[in-house]
Amino acid sequence: MELSRIGRQMATPSGLRAIMDDISTATSAAPALTWRNLGVGNPAAIPAVCDWWQGLAAEALAEGFADVSCRYGASRGLPRLVDAITGYFNRHYDWDIGPQNVVVGPGSQLLCFMAAAMFTGPGCVRDSKLVLPMAPDYTGYQGLSMAAGAASGVDPLLVTEGQRTFRYDLDLAAVSKRSDAGMFLLSSPSNPAGRCLRTGERASLIEIAGDFRVPLMIDHAYGYPFPGITEVPTAPVWHDHVINSFSLSKTGLPGERLGFVIAPERYATPLVSFVANSTLHAPQLVQATVARALEDDAIDAVVAAAITPFYAERRKYLESHLASALPSGIDWRIHASEGGMFVWLWVDEDWFEDLTVYRLLKERGVFIVPGRHFFTDPEQDRPLGRHLRQCVRISMTPDPEDLAVGVTLIAEALADMSSAADRTADRPN
Amino acid sequence: MELSRIGRQMATPSGLRAIMDDISTATSAAPALTWRNLGVGNPAAIPAVCDWWQGLAAEALAEGFADVSCRYGASRGLPRLVDAITGYFNRHYDWDIGPQNVVVGPGSQLLCFMAAAMFTGPGCVRDSKLVLPMAPDYTGYQGLSMAAGAASGVDPLLVTEGQRTFRYDLDLAAVSKRSDAGMFLLSSPSNPAGRCLRTGERASLIEIAGDFRVPLMIDHAYGYPFPGITEVPTAPVWHDHVINSFSLSKTGLPGERLGFVIAPERYATPLVSFVANSTLHAPQLVQATVARALEDDAIDAVVAAAITPFYAERRKYLESHLASALPSGIDWRIHASEGGMFVWLWVDEDWFEDLTVYRLLKERGVFIVPGRHFFTDPEQDRPLGRHLRQCVRISMTPDPEDLAVGVTLIAEALADMSSAADRTADRPN
Repeated sequence: MELSRIGRQMATPSGLRAIMDDISTATSAAPALTWRNLGVGNPAAIPAVCDWWQGLAAEALAEGFADVSCRYGASRGLPRLVDAITGYFNRHYDWDIGPQNVVVGPGSQLLCFMAAAMFTGPGCVRDSKLVLPMAPDYTGYQGLSMAAGAASGVDPLLVTEGQRTFRYDLDLAAVSKRSDAGMFLLSSPSNPAGRCLRTGERASLIEIAGDFRVPLMIDHAYGYPFPGITEVPTAPVWHDHVINSFSLSKTGLPGERLGFVIAPERYATPLVSFVANSTLHAPQLVQATVARALEDDAIDAVVAAAITPFYAERRKYLESHLASALPSGIDWRIHASEGGMFVWLWVDEDWFEDLTVYRLLKERGVFIVPGRHFFTDPEQDRPLGRHLRQCVRISMTPDPEDLAVGVTLIAEALADMSSAADRTADRPN
Repeated sequence: MELSRIGRQMATPSGLRAIMDDISTATSAAPALTWRNLGVGNPAAIPAVCDWWQGLAAEALAEGFADVSCRYGASRGLPRLVDAITGYFNRHYDWDIGPQNVVVGPGSQLLCFMAAAMFTGPGCVRDSKLVLPMAPDYTGYQGLSMAAGAASGVDPLLVTEGQRTFRYDLDLAAVSKRSDAGMFLLSSPSNPAGRCLRTGERASLIEIAGDFRVPLMIDHAYGYPFPGITEVPTAPVWHDHVINSFSLSKTGLPGERLGFVIAPERYATPLVSFVANSTLHAPQLVQATVARALEDDAIDAVVAAAITPFYAERRKYLESHLASALPSGIDWRIHASEGGMFVWLWVDEDWFEDLTVYRLLKERGVFIVPGRHFFTDPEQDRPLGRHLRQCVRISMTPDPEDLAVGVTLIAEALADMSSAADRTADRPN
């Protein structure tokens, strides 16, 4: 059996996937142990949100099953959903979009994959890359590119704030040199760091994309208008060079894989063809369900009442536990709390490495996610140096008790690593 | 904006898609007219089948919504569905497959797309093609290849039978010369001709695939075990070189986009990675629904009672209308009735062209599908010659009354075309 070049690339699980497989193997090999999985990417199962979706899905099922599930549909999306999307965004943001600007897909990940395939890679005039303007970013982006090495991140500027906080800033000068870009792609708030793009930064990125005549794809998976898991509410912007990507996963429907993009027609039209050629269209019962959520803005009340406050509170809880439990004698910092589902912890000590703490915590029955995989080419030497291997991602979605115990065990592991390093340092040469 | 090479290819709608758009535009521009659309690719909406699925979906929704819809799932498929699939096929065909042999996807079309991307195209050792061992075949296959010209059909041998029937035979000698193949792909029963692969032919194809060390993908979208729309019941075969593809679309759930493949582990494993990297996993509520249909073999009763007989009867009805309505003075034949949802009509007259009859019928308010798009490169000169432009596809799924009127109007159009040709022939030079 021979795989094509694309086949080799797509058959390679990402580094993060190996970790996820390891978590799954470890927990199923010893199910009797109490595992605290602080590595999960699943959004929290908020009962009120789940019940609300279930009600809408039941309604869609009862009212339109034969029409939506028992016949093929339009590649752009179920007309009722496409109309609901244009109505919702025109109403909320005073846009003037029509169906020609919308593409619904079986998950925003697949739409990102298609956009990456269409706008980056071997080209007719030049070869181009999928450039992530600010690593660390969602590891899934690295798996989107069908050409080896075609996803490439720009490292951020690292700014410390006070004693326990830091933030990444966009290195716009470096981004503006990426003339190899076929498309820019970033999440805001970001996974893993929770960083939100500022209006001014967005304007600069748009300008750079415009100079290179390539699209800037902004993934609002955690952002506005839904799920609104952000302390820096940023309205999406309509622009001639911007592809806005939205997902229903963090608003409560991850298992149903529904996403959509809103983009200028010249980007949307070829994407619809790609959907048609590769997968025909997205599943329709969930489309009918989501249409109902948007038509009367019901989704806004659920976001405001149940989702935004849930994550705000959970973040406060996790951060305060970290602040009181982590050893005060070591140099740890978390990324400025702006949004998303994760806390991004940086331990700036020579003796700290993400894979080591992953292993030590696994022995204690706790999982976190090592941070290196969120950077592209983490093994390559560059200015951020060891920082690339000094971060871990902690999820806010496990139960509070698991979070509390998990944090205590993280603190213990750090204390142990620190003492071991001290002992090594004390050892006579 | 610049599209990548893949982007250009995938942004190109297929020839058939242009026809479908034309049908949609014509009917929405004149909705007051009575259109008889005998071109549809939708399976029949059989109320008993639809009700049955609705009941199962309602059960899945009521019993497991939070677990299946409100969390991410496994890329291979919902474990309950994967188990249901292995159980069902092991039970029915005495196979010995396990979860490692199953890949569930959002539609079998996307799984075919992924397999085509992994096993054909620019390679590390050689470039290879997606070879359709017997054109005409499903036009969607031509849109799967991300490299221009990478999908390539082998023309069949054409055998006439009696006065009004003909059949295509596999040109195995020609297929055995296709050393440029990275994968073979065919539907059985086929869309459009309804031709079923014989056990001996399948063995020969498997041998050729084995010689080339490439997979043979067999698409059972219309076949066994479901939807069973075939007069030549052929059990799928397990073989080291065969990827079997199954779809729920023609069993009644086209709108929910669910398909799966059963294949040796060395093919299935990279496909799971491709699913993970590009789309994470298939939507899960429909997976939970289909699991219920397979677990107790309930699907078999529905196929036997409602689906197989429905299409058998509909085929008889349509063929008998054609036999009595079409002008006896012209040389028309239909492909031997073996299965699938279509009748494939060949008019072997100099004056007949598929696009012309399409246009004439459209003026009469009837749509059929011109046949040329089901052949790859129909404009290229080759032994089948004008046959490539002398076939049309007629769907069996419209209402019987529409079928009857449609056939009458097809007969009128043929009579008109024939008379016009006679008048031209009589004209002095």
